[in-house]
Amino acid sequence: MAKKKVNVAVVGATGAVGTEMFGVLQERGFPVDRLLPLASSRSAGEEIEFAGTTYKVEELKHDSFAGIDIALFSAGGKVSAEFAPSAAKAGAVVIDNTSHFRMDPDVPLVVPEVNAKDIGEYKKKRIIANPNCSTIQVVVAVKPLFDAVPVKRMVVSTYQAVSGAGKEAMDELNEQVTALYNHRELPQEIFGRQMAFNVLAAIGTFDDNGDTDEELKMRNESRKMLHLPALAVACTCVRVPVYNGHSVAVYLELEKELSPDKARALLREAPGVLLVDEPKKRQIPTPLDASGQDATLVGRVRRDESVPHGLSLFCCADNLRKGAATNAVQIAEILLRDHL
Amino acid sequence: MAKKKVNVAVVGATGAVGTEMFGVLQERGFPVDRLLPLASSRSAGEEIEFAGTTYKVEELKHDSFAGIDIALFSAGGKVSAEFAPSAAKAGAVVIDNTSHFRMDPDVPLVVPEVNAKDIGEYKKKRIIANPNCSTIQVVVAVKPLFDAVPVKRMVVSTYQAVSGAGKEAMDELNEQVTALYNHRELPQEIFGRQMAFNVLAAIGTFDDNGDTDEELKMRNESRKMLHLPALAVACTCVRVPVYNGHSVAVYLELEKELSPDKARALLREAPGVLLVDEPKKRQIPTPLDASGQDATLVGRVRRDESVPHGLSLFCCADNLRKGAATNAVQIAEILLRDHL
Repeated sequence: MAKKKVNVAVVGATGAVGTEMFGVLQERGFPVDRLLPLASSRSAGEEIEFAGTTYKVEELKHDSFAGIDIALFSAGGKVSAEFAPSAAKAGAVVIDNTSHFRMDPDVPLVVPEVNAKDIGEYKKKRIIANPNCSTIQVVVAVKPLFDAVPVKRMVVSTYQAVSGAGKEAMDELNEQVTALYNHRELPQEIFGRQMAFNVLAAIGTFDDNGDTDEELKMRNESRKMLHLPALAVACTCVRVPVYNGHSVAVYLELEKELSPDKARALLREAPGVLLVDEPKKRQIPTPLDASGQDATLVGRVRRDESVPHGLSLFCCADNLRKGAATNAVQIAEILLRDHL
Repeated sequence: MAKKKVNVAVVGATGAVGTEMFGVLQERGFPVDRLLPLASSRSAGEEIEFAGTTYKVEELKHDSFAGIDIALFSAGGKVSAEFAPSAAKAGAVVIDNTSHFRMDPDVPLVVPEVNAKDIGEYKKKRIIANPNCSTIQVVVAVKPLFDAVPVKRMVVSTYQAVSGAGKEAMDELNEQVTALYNHRELPQEIFGRQMAFNVLAAIGTFDDNGDTDEELKMRNESRKMLHLPALAVACTCVRVPVYNGHSVAVYLELEKELSPDKARALLREAPGVLLVDEPKKRQIPTPLDASGQDATLVGRVRRDESVPHGLSLFCCADNLRKGAATNAVQIAEILLRDHL
């Protein structure tokens, strides 16, 4: 049986997520007919390798999307705000990796393992939002538990890699490390200060209560995807000097007893989860182990006796893959299978 | 008025904390008459600079402590278990930086800003315990708040520097980074795996519930120092690739309302605390800023609306100084002023 093939545009083709997107499309054998790498005029003309063919990156314009079936956007919120409607109008379905449309009630926000059925809602605006990177792995890890036992509250502390801030951030960490080792002045254009061998509890911008938008994404996007609009979420988002792979410490307050053994049994069967939980053998999730794969590694599943029915866990995932590119391509696969 | 001077032994004189101890004793003008640096036979013979004089490190023996008034121990739990009683028997007061005696009901566990009055209990065994490094900064930060409003529960996620695992751990991180940048094989004798650009949610040993001893220290030592034996504490301890300076995300569930403004006012006046909380100006605590100073930096003070009377904060302190050496010398100062 011949698979139908589709025309795919990648907006932000030269960025950290865009680059990953090409790799994931190939690895997963996504049936691409025509590939259209798009970027700002600054990056237009660069070359991209995809499935043995070299493509020239074209400049993103409002009329770029004629004949495109699926447009994968990851070039920042402003670019999506301006160009996603043009892509939708031209007949493409946009899968947007920025935060711009995520809380729009007419745009589904989807992690396939969690709420694949919401993809059908794409028809309203022809846009599907891909969630925030650190939120994706949390909902993948907690959904199988919440399906078994209702939840009251979730406390979340993140350990986020610099790749979440883009390619320039990875370069700057690298330049900072080499500058330190060579006694040169530190570049700090991206982070505004030393990120190497330091920890920065400031991702995004602060509101008047002192929460960052990154922290509010964890709360609001979790609520939307889990269909739990009143879920209580406390969150602190912290950048750590890791190149790639986000980690999250999660403390759950459940409505009823869920033993660590039962939780592990659920996680072992859960889609998108790889249980790594033999701490006495030093088998725990690390961002380095998560990096390069699609699964969310979950471990350190423990009873939390500080609260009735408390359970805590630690998870890690590749924020460029499952936290961005893989999740977007998974959405595209379901879209293609069920809707296009 | 001539200050009385005392004879001080430092056990573990060549370790990360021992080295810091000499610096802190000098900086604070501690009235040392005779200084006695002690270490294992392996390090005996090494030289130490202190206040313009060079001292030879002597081998630690049971009869090392004749004439010593204060013995500062930081050479590991086994060394303290074996030699602290000998020092006490010889008439010294031991200030022990290891975990060995911390939960002994006849040994006070002290952070001067929190429970200085407990120092008087030293008479029972002539031993005073210095708490775990990450716990010290947490109790310094929360004590002024708990004095104003009683607390129900505390959730704590740590971001701990490698210096907390000793000098060899700092060396190994350094060697790992240079090995990575030179495409050489990574040494991993201390961490058992790559710590550079990675995160390890495993500090210490695991019990059957999956908690580490480091995590239980946070709970048990906080309870003892705050005189809150039933305080509910959830904790995840995580090592991050930072050379020095521990960071902690803290979520408090208070019994009554305490506004962030009131909390900040209390913290501004609190001993040992430096409030760094203008996040919109990117003024937040970082381990790099905390490193080299004695204050616990506290910031990101926020209302946590996920729970009644919730308040969260982020703090950083130098784990070798306030987390170890400075706290021990502060205890020695009070001991000298009030008891010797």
